Amino acid sequence: MERITSRRNPLVRSAAALLGSSRERRERREFLCEGARLCRDAAASGVKIKTCFFTPRAREKYRGYLERILGAAESVYMIEDPVAGLLSDTKSPQGIFCLCAWPRQAANNGQAAPDEPCLVLENLQDPGNLGTILRTAEALGRFRVFLLGDCCDPLSPKALRASMGAAFRLWPEGAASAEELLWRLKNEGYSIHGAVPAETARPVTGIDFTKGRHTVVIGNEGSGLTRETAGLCHDLITIPMGGRAESLNAAAAATVLLWELLRRGESDGTAE
Amino acid sequence: MERITSRRNPLVRSAAALLGSSRERRERREFLCEGARLCRDAAASGVKIKTCFFTPRAREKYRGYLERILGAAESVYMIEDPVAGLLSDTKSPQGIFCLCAWPRQAANNGQAAPDEPCLVLENLQDPGNLGTILRTAEALGRFRVFLLGDCCDPLSPKALRASMGAAFRLWPEGAASAEELLWRLKNEGYSIHGAVPAETARPVTGIDFTKGRHTVVIGNEGSGLTRETAGLCHDLITIPMGGRAESLNAAAAATVLLWELLRRGESDGTAE
Repeated sequence: MERITSRRNPLVRSAAALLGSSRERRERREFLCEGARLCRDAAASGVKIKTCFFTPRAREKYRGYLERILGAAESVYMIEDPVAGLLSDTKSPQGIFCLCAWPRQAANNGQAAPDEPCLVLENLQDPGNLGTILRTAEALGRFRVFLLGDCCDPLSPKALRASMGAAFRLWPEGAASAEELLWRLKNEGYSIHGAVPAETARPVTGIDFTKGRHTVVIGNEGSGLTRETAGLCHDLITIPMGGRAESLNAAAAATVLLWELLRRGESDGTAE
Repeated sequence: MERITSRRNPLVRSAAALLGSSRERRERREFLCEGARLCRDAAASGVKIKTCFFTPRAREKYRGYLERILGAAESVYMIEDPVAGLLSDTKSPQGIFCLCAWPRQAANNGQAAPDEPCLVLENLQDPGNLGTILRTAEALGRFRVFLLGDCCDPLSPKALRASMGAAFRLWPEGAASAEELLWRLKNEGYSIHGAVPAETARPVTGIDFTKGRHTVVIGNEGSGLTRETAGLCHDLITIPMGGRAESLNAAAAATVLLWELLRRGESDGTAE
């Protein structure tokens, strides 16, 4: 196995360039995945691993993980610690990195039944929030997820860590515009609900999500939905709160909304 | 105003000692709070600020925040950047720090009506999870929160950041033992529900939380409730999930449970 000792090695530099730039990731349709568990999840989820880099220490410590990863990797390099530092987004790198091809866009659609609830995220700025929301969506049920406007990148290092690999399996689709996407969903028979913090909006607990097809649209952490997108929704909904409502963060609000979309009480006899 | 230029200054060393040691915080009944917004929230929430340290740059940048903080601080020092580095838990410190007395333990009880729902956290290890859960609890409604066993410290830098200051207002009570606490709550008429990931447990959607008093007990992120605590609960409940259930993280699970505890549907006519 070839060993890379120089931080100037072109393969390493090319991999490191994917770390900080979402444009680089988009143009090359590649991303860099870090950590034993995340890299193993990439392999297990069918993500194409072009190159795996690992340190001698990682080989000792993460033998079981590495076995699975190396079975899927097209090429493999041993690297020294300073090289690992260059590829890492964390303070204490585990020393395992995979340069991967973008997950197939079709994966999501292929698995999703056509009347699954939809989640649309508009201008979400925090990669930790995006990752957490994808992780929660994957845990609670089957969703179709769409990113609108200027959302952060689900394949950035921070979003990947927060998603625990959910982005490998629940790949969010992009959309050209709110108008194009929301009209498409309307034509598929979806009711479109825009989530807002306003007390005057319809309480989410007043909607029977067990009937029909539903889409919830969540906006930017600070400024909420754009006026254009809010205007395209069938109605505006809100989470009724008895506490210090301004404290609810975006990921927690999304968790409540995702849960309500799938929630089946005892009374309607469809509890899963 | 006195100016501190040396990292060896005893006041600074004493404040820095609170950063990394929960034992130090407990024994001195003090903690260190960092950042413009968090320090301002401490002042606004009536936390006793013994000393405020800030850099000249912070004075320019966070004038509005500082005004409020300095109005509440008993003593104030200007510090140089290297001193700020010693007091900080973050990569890019804002340069504002408050050495505070512990929030009054009574604050929580004083505000809480006796039949508010209770949240008991057992052996919660991740300060980010603890902070997020406190923040969500404060947002959604009024809760009494208890920490059981070997929980992480709500006043650690990471927990404080994640809680956005919720710990100042919703101070979690400690408890000597699960037995002592859960019997006390039983005597107050609470039903005690232990949250577990087992599919055989009772679905949380099958319980009418609008009637009676309810306590939900959440266990450690990896190992769940201890056998002793699970045995003391009236029943075991679970979040029914249609997706990759192992992906739900502790804070998201807590969000769903807190939401269910307070949730009022249209049908029961008590929507808030």
